[in-house]
Amino acid sequence: MAKRQADTGEKLLHSGVGLLSQEGLSGITMGRLAEQVGMSKSGVFAHFKSKADVQIALLEYTSQLATPRVLEPTLREPIGLPRLNALVRNWFGWAGRAGLPGGCPIAAAMFELDDVEGPVREKVQQMEAEWRGMLAQLVREAVGTGELREDLDVEQFVWELCGIYLGHHVSTRFVRDASADARGATAWAALLDRARPTANRSEREAAVT
Amino acid sequence: MAKRQADTGEKLLHSGVGLLSQEGLSGITMGRLAEQVGMSKSGVFAHFKSKADVQIALLEYTSQLATPRVLEPTLREPIGLPRLNALVRNWFGWAGRAGLPGGCPIAAAMFELDDVEGPVREKVQQMEAEWRGMLAQLVREAVGTGELREDLDVEQFVWELCGIYLGHHVSTRFVRDASADARGATAWAALLDRARPTANRSEREAAVT
Repeated sequence: MAKRQADTGEKLLHSGVGLLSQEGLSGITMGRLAEQVGMSKSGVFAHFKSKADVQIALLEYTSQLATPRVLEPTLREPIGLPRLNALVRNWFGWAGRAGLPGGCPIAAAMFELDDVEGPVREKVQQMEAEWRGMLAQLVREAVGTGELREDLDVEQFVWELCGIYLGHHVSTRFVRDASADARGATAWAALLDRARPTANRSEREAAVT
Repeated sequence: MAKRQADTGEKLLHSGVGLLSQEGLSGITMGRLAEQVGMSKSGVFAHFKSKADVQIALLEYTSQLATPRVLEPTLREPIGLPRLNALVRNWFGWAGRAGLPGGCPIAAAMFELDDVEGPVREKVQQMEAEWRGMLAQLVREAVGTGELREDLDVEQFVWELCGIYLGHHVSTRFVRDASADARGATAWAALLDRARPTANRSEREAAVT
């Protein structure tokens, strides 16, 4: 019984995260989710107390999907630039590689919840802050190895990297621009190049070509 | 009668665009809109044929709000860099300055509609393409004046500028980071500096400091 309940819970999360990636948090209601997995609404309520409860569970499930695909392979790379480059390679476009039918649920939630207060917003905010903290850590490590310059404004670097990620997301998923990956790679190379110690920079550094 | 109908239409659009900026397109239903302006659902149907119809009308209204605040003051500036700088100044954060209670409806729609086909997506796609075309035009003008370099990849420049805009949107509205404007200005200055003819670049060009 407990096993079957766990299986149903897993099924709800798996199905729900697909819906989340396609329709955003507003697409997640008890009724929609019940319909999606072919069970009654009261069956869904047996697993989750409220809409906010299921939305938060789905955000956590998103993180569980991302960790082995984005973070773990990154942390197997040597500290410094190789690890930072691996992060970007594993992060950009991760949702599709994780089998999600839509885009990154966290990126979408940051636009969806900017004016909606409550526990779901707080959850996304906490996830986003942890993610930025992790990015900053990796950047600081590359400063530590001397591959990025000592006086680098790490927060600014992370801020700009997050902008490139969002631009790439729109470019691949909304605009469906075939050159999105190349554009993202050029932007990332330019950001990195500006952050290198002066002696190591490419001659025509960060050339937008 | 025609006048009163036009007034009601304007009231619906004005009220609806506020709702759109706060809740996104999924927040716009005939019922919600009727409730918002205190009229019957059939009253709303007298103005709009369907949910898609009202969503498209609200996207067009968004554009009408933005034009005098973003585009017109920009086009009054001298061609080239002054105009390009004015564009960024007028664009970033425009929704708040236009009196909208939430964020930029177009930025949010690009995440909301990435997997939703239909006329509303097509409308946003068309608006976004026109906007990027206008940005590219302004950048080409600054190449023409010799302020940006001749071999600049204009599409890449615009792609990165759009990423900075999205990053700034998240930073101001979702993260509520007090340094968002300064971060955005630094990122923009760095993008510009990389695009200048080599002789005109700042010594520590595009320094992330």
